[in-house]
Amino acid sequence: MSVPPSADLSLADIYRARSRIDGRVCRTPLVESPSLSAHAGTPVYLKLETVQPTGSFKLRGATNALAQLAEQGCTRVVTASTGNHGRAVAHAARALGIDATVCLSRLVPANKVDAVRALGAHVRITGQSQDEAEHEALRLAREEGYAYVPPFDDPRVIAGQGTIGLEIVEALPDVANIVVPLSGGGLFAGIALAAKSTSAAIGLSGVTMARGAAMHASLAVGQPVLVEEVDTLADSLGGGIGLENRYTYALTRDLIDETVLLDEASIARGIAHAYRQERLVVEGAAAVGIAAVLDRALPAERIARGPLVLVVTGANIDMDLHRRIVGNETSQAEPPPNPHTAS
Amino acid sequence: MSVPPSADLSLADIYRARSRIDGRVCRTPLVESPSLSAHAGTPVYLKLETVQPTGSFKLRGATNALAQLAEQGCTRVVTASTGNHGRAVAHAARALGIDATVCLSRLVPANKVDAVRALGAHVRITGQSQDEAEHEALRLAREEGYAYVPPFDDPRVIAGQGTIGLEIVEALPDVANIVVPLSGGGLFAGIALAAKSTSAAIGLSGVTMARGAAMHASLAVGQPVLVEEVDTLADSLGGGIGLENRYTYALTRDLIDETVLLDEASIARGIAHAYRQERLVVEGAAAVGIAAVLDRALPAERIARGPLVLVVTGANIDMDLHRRIVGNETSQAEPPPNPHTAS
Repeated sequence: MSVPPSADLSLADIYRARSRIDGRVCRTPLVESPSLSAHAGTPVYLKLETVQPTGSFKLRGATNALAQLAEQGCTRVVTASTGNHGRAVAHAARALGIDATVCLSRLVPANKVDAVRALGAHVRITGQSQDEAEHEALRLAREEGYAYVPPFDDPRVIAGQGTIGLEIVEALPDVANIVVPLSGGGLFAGIALAAKSTSAAIGLSGVTMARGAAMHASLAVGQPVLVEEVDTLADSLGGGIGLENRYTYALTRDLIDETVLLDEASIARGIAHAYRQERLVVEGAAAVGIAAVLDRALPAERIARGPLVLVVTGANIDMDLHRRIVGNETSQAEPPPNPHTAS
Repeated sequence: MSVPPSADLSLADIYRARSRIDGRVCRTPLVESPSLSAHAGTPVYLKLETVQPTGSFKLRGATNALAQLAEQGCTRVVTASTGNHGRAVAHAARALGIDATVCLSRLVPANKVDAVRALGAHVRITGQSQDEAEHEALRLAREEGYAYVPPFDDPRVIAGQGTIGLEIVEALPDVANIVVPLSGGGLFAGIALAAKSTSAAIGLSGVTMARGAAMHASLAVGQPVLVEEVDTLADSLGGGIGLENRYTYALTRDLIDETVLLDEASIARGIAHAYRQERLVVEGAAAVGIAAVLDRALPAERIARGPLVLVVTGANIDMDLHRRIVGNETSQAEPPPNPHTAS
């Protein structure tokens, strides 16, 4: 077994996470894509986290963390995310009868503030930036006894996301490769731990955007580093991994087989293909696996090893942006024909 | 129990169907819709058959029928559908190692013929109409020993579709109403049988298009009748129920609480809402439950009874048509505000 021993996390933790979150999150479908299978020349499956109640996989980790906090008698949690993690924490908190507070800066637009409130969370408006909102969340945790729920660098969160990996290997024991959108590494580490514990032969690819990918930059230099944030269609993959990263950097470093970088045009092709061929609305971060297959960005020898699973992480894209992307799609957005499947 | 005794079909048959199809079809997600819940003033859930491997619920009934045929030693099946049923039969046959033949008329366009072949089915081109293709399918069954797989009026098909009802009542035992797209009645009868057997208090609504709805016309006159087919966005709901209908007419008549009719503009609103608010690509037939909620077409006293489940049956819409519908959407397509939720 190639999984490094870890005092913090093992496959057993992922089983524990599943027993906690079962019935609270969706066991999501794993569906073959005929178009991508034909293109790749090997069976390609999509793991559809888009159908989770909050529209992304983040509900798994948040629910696992909050269920443990609830067992410990915690009644108040705090976070500072306006994105998929924030939605997940708010949803899980409501389901578990915990009070959730989301700290937001004054710059967050009213519709996003309303969306957080609609999920049943309290909103605390503070400061002029996401960093200042985050500091307030950490202050509430330190000084007022709230439990802070980290978005990725947390064993409970990692174990929760890892339940995706369990579902994949149980549904498709012959999976040869799993392709995971790579951001802070919580999703990647959890899935990789589940998969490599099941079979060290399963390949794990991380896919992310070409610019502003903190985990990729950190792996390249051998330690967690800061990167400048840049606008990207895969906005859920932005943000740092934390210079004080405790779990996800080491796990990702030890378990990843390769990192694949995609430009924005490629991510847009992934979104458009998901819509036209798979009839799925996906956010940019969720389209990177599809884009990597379409653009033949994965190593050919890896594709040749057998069935491929792409984790399609979420659906929370701005719908005006989505409509522009799928409306602008022209024949130039189609991938080149596959010489292997034509023979 | 208000379910009439039937020599042909009972809840036990639906359990048997489930044990046969488990692992071959998806246990689909049941997800709450915050926007529809707010609009209706009661929790509204979507049962997402859109994620089935062939993009519609039809795989359940086809798999249950073919699994029984395979047990009986059958090696060849035939059908004449180019739509969701044909896709489902082809997919199920390939999975079970059965030969499937689909009879098509000379008028079926090449891309549809290719799509059937891509699913692994044999194609037999014959005649100048769907009726003639159907006759050829029945002739193959009569004279050459093929097993004909009816699209809806068949106990095996009804029981297969009924597994949706089981999944709904198990996941949401407090469901008060289930809203089912109404066509030939196989889906409706199966779900209604599962639901009413569980609790006679569960309401069952059938929703269909205002013109060309054969089951509605038949219920109105008290026996199966022919209707003229008309173009509709809900094309999967078109077609007759058969003057010699044996099962679905009587079951639907006995189990339905009301029929709701929708015009084309309403169905388009349902498709657009599914895209913008639920981030789902759905075909017209699958949008009718959403449209009925948006347009307040369901009786108010029914809504008031409690949680509502809408069966979202499939995703197989022409994507150029879909893009036009969601691209044309303007504020006029939005439903009126709900006076109940504003108070």
